[in-house]
Amino acid sequence: MPELRIDPIAGRKVLIAEDRAGRPNDFESAGASSCPFCAGHEQRTPRSLLEISDGQGGWQVRVIPNLYPAVSLDCDKISNDSSFQASGSQPAYGTHEVIVESPRHIQDITELSTEELAQVLLVYRDRLQHWSEEKSIQHATVFKNVGRVAGASLEHIHSQLVALPFVPEVIANEIRGAKQFYERKGTCIFCRLLQEELEQGERLVGEEGPFVAFCAYAGRQPFETWVLPKQHASHFKQLTDDEAHSLASLLQQVVCRLQTQLKPLSYNLILHTAPFGDQTPDSYHWHLEIIPRTAQLAGFEWGAGVHINSLLPERAAKLLREAIA
Amino acid sequence: MPELRIDPIAGRKVLIAEDRAGRPNDFESAGASSCPFCAGHEQRTPRSLLEISDGQGGWQVRVIPNLYPAVSLDCDKISNDSSFQASGSQPAYGTHEVIVESPRHIQDITELSTEELAQVLLVYRDRLQHWSEEKSIQHATVFKNVGRVAGASLEHIHSQLVALPFVPEVIANEIRGAKQFYERKGTCIFCRLLQEELEQGERLVGEEGPFVAFCAYAGRQPFETWVLPKQHASHFKQLTDDEAHSLASLLQQVVCRLQTQLKPLSYNLILHTAPFGDQTPDSYHWHLEIIPRTAQLAGFEWGAGVHINSLLPERAAKLLREAIA
Repeated sequence: MPELRIDPIAGRKVLIAEDRAGRPNDFESAGASSCPFCAGHEQRTPRSLLEISDGQGGWQVRVIPNLYPAVSLDCDKISNDSSFQASGSQPAYGTHEVIVESPRHIQDITELSTEELAQVLLVYRDRLQHWSEEKSIQHATVFKNVGRVAGASLEHIHSQLVALPFVPEVIANEIRGAKQFYERKGTCIFCRLLQEELEQGERLVGEEGPFVAFCAYAGRQPFETWVLPKQHASHFKQLTDDEAHSLASLLQQVVCRLQTQLKPLSYNLILHTAPFGDQTPDSYHWHLEIIPRTAQLAGFEWGAGVHINSLLPERAAKLLREAIA
Repeated sequence: MPELRIDPIAGRKVLIAEDRAGRPNDFESAGASSCPFCAGHEQRTPRSLLEISDGQGGWQVRVIPNLYPAVSLDCDKISNDSSFQASGSQPAYGTHEVIVESPRHIQDITELSTEELAQVLLVYRDRLQHWSEEKSIQHATVFKNVGRVAGASLEHIHSQLVALPFVPEVIANEIRGAKQFYERKGTCIFCRLLQEELEQGERLVGEEGPFVAFCAYAGRQPFETWVLPKQHASHFKQLTDDEAHSLASLLQQVVCRLQTQLKPLSYNLILHTAPFGDQTPDSYHWHLEIIPRTAQLAGFEWGAGVHINSLLPERAAKLLREAIA
């Protein structure tokens, strides 16, 4: 059973999940023939929690429990955060799902049709809606690891969802900053940022209907790109079917541009959405962060928490705009 | 000139240093013959800031300015942290030094004599003492990247020192937690932790005179190991010559044990020491963190700030104790 531990000094939360060490790694094996996510191999994974039909008797998207979960619902949720003694650890409550994005053995979202990727985004929305109704869960992170250096252990196209009984640190920090800005200025900091990025244009990567993509002003890695809805929305579960199509198209455009600059491209795509019971819907704004993994984190990043980025975000955006998408 | 940018939402600091993209990478080249850190190649690096003689006309340890610095003293220090407009960025003030630990083309501290490593630690102490006298500098991080996946670009044994005009986030978080504990309990949290680790023993890796090594209770990566002085000390610059010898011996023992479990071993070694003008010398306790790099950080770590560790720290410590050192 996975365990949640809290560093006694810095308060940092860590999930200890020993079963994960045993998970398969198909970057070392034969590819499609042994892939548990390919059509025809469904018996190698747990039963689907949700399946979207391909209209021809098969599935197009499957949601399954992660066989090697970092958190589990099969344990009591304990809220004692205080001690650093071994007895102060607690079971790692939560849920860890895999979203298999295609029955085909493909690796990146540029190999899906825009319609297929829109369907994947709608599955994100539906799973977030599902977990938002579970009182013991406060937040869910949806993310993709593409490529081995981005932490992927299976190459078959998939995303993951980890739902937790607490708001994780990265989201809590954003919410704090956004709330402070809202209290001072009476407006959403993301809406303001968006407006400036659109006006200035020097970090702009692309637009598609109600969505915009730009290189992050304080990007941690070269080519770090954020995708936001232009209209204020705190929860990804507010996404409409039409919006899903525009968002899919913009994401494919951004990844395609990244592929021309970085070969091979490895990246993480991370959905930042408000906590389910969020009381500050006016100050927080959901967004996607695409973080290409070009540089290894080194001792300075671990020891100081300060990233070193060797490419000016304005230059990165220009390179992406000039890339043929 | 490198630039300091602050993420407008989360407040995260990032150093944008484009020159670093051009730094040499000898993991791709010929090794010693082209290595700028080897004896005889001194003209390929800037003039030494400090040299420890080998007693035979040569040097044993050299401190040089980093040719590809993430921060620079050749700029004004500006303290405006508020805006997220491009005009809100500021020059990245500070200093970035390299400590070349041997004239020989070796890679890890287990290839130094204990006497040689003790001398390296005393150089850390002396450089920290030096920068503590500079009023514009608040903190310095000393770290080592060993192996390519730990972020090393040159394999020749070396450390780095980055001194900054602010206390970096990781240290600020530790100081906050330690101060809160001190206010509640009247004692240093590290001293208390140390006492428990010595009593319980299940995470203990080794001891050497006044120093102890144990696997971190909430380690972020398998085999994360901390080394602390048993007697309370907030600043590494308090290290005595005798202590340097014991510390060197313990560090070599720990790395040797790690080498038996992880082949090849890549790791970061990071010195956490109190800010120079620290007003809380009773609550903070310097320590070294050794973080083997076995798993890539994935989307969940980037998106949630919560690490997943696939090895129980108690099991890691047992494996290290059983390893022949």
